[in-house]
Amino acid sequence: MLANRLYRFLASMRVAHLATADRRGVPHVVPVCFAVSGDRLYITIDEKPKRRPAAGLKRLTNIAENPAVAVVVDRYEEDWTRLGWVLLHGRAEILADGPEHDDAQALLRSRYRQLQTMRLAAYPVIAVRIDRATSWGNLLVEGE
Amino acid sequence: MLANRLYRFLASMRVAHLATADRRGVPHVVPVCFAVSGDRLYITIDEKPKRRPAAGLKRLTNIAENPAVAVVVDRYEEDWTRLGWVLLHGRAEILADGPEHDDAQALLRSRYRQLQTMRLAAYPVIAVRIDRATSWGNLLVEGE
Repeated sequence: MLANRLYRFLASMRVAHLATADRRGVPHVVPVCFAVSGDRLYITIDEKPKRRPAAGLKRLTNIAENPAVAVVVDRYEEDWTRLGWVLLHGRAEILADGPEHDDAQALLRSRYRQLQTMRLAAYPVIAVRIDRATSWGNLLVEGE
Repeated sequence: MLANRLYRFLASMRVAHLATADRRGVPHVVPVCFAVSGDRLYITIDEKPKRRPAAGLKRLTNIAENPAVAVVVDRYEEDWTRLGWVLLHGRAEILADGPEHDDAQALLRSRYRQLQTMRLAAYPVIAVRIDRATSWGNLLVEGE
């Protein structure tokens, strides 16, 4: 669904920023680890210490109130000819368990060795169905 | 207004992520250059090529519809003991000109040499009045 050059850029980057909004339209944004598979972007809650218990995380309560989300993946360098981003819009769903939840966590573990020693199964996954992708700037990755 | 350690972290970082939402609560997020002064965070539109003319930028049309914004400044490193972020919530105002607009652009030029050769005066500034700051993780900067 995404153009190959967008996939390659996404695959080369390690952090995304997830924007949600509550039912009143007040935005929230957090950095997240992510993986893309087909038309889905996955984020898992993990064992990193949080300010609140997982169920109370603002990103999750916002999605329960308002599933519209935006995710941007961008590169910042001091050489501004290297700046680029991919912005994804879609609807998010919270997966508490099940095959898609487990596959997403396996995919994330394969991308982030830091997750390999964490117990993730009990944590929810945010699955974003990508409805629209826009991009800007220089999306060339190392070696291209 | 912000604790010193939050200021120091913000001052050490080069990119922020600005989340806005339109009147229906659909979020949007973009990477931005920024500067903080007192209880204000400033972002300027600049000469970097954009997908749309400045006046049609989604970040600006969203703020006109819904001034609530969130801005996160975070550090990603593969050593996850170094992860940290500062999340700011506030209301944004668009400054087309005037002393605060000009001071903000001067401050941004002092922080980003890349802006020094750009003609900025005709571009609007987004001024975020910081109402609330939260933080997470490791905010120590080099040398602390």
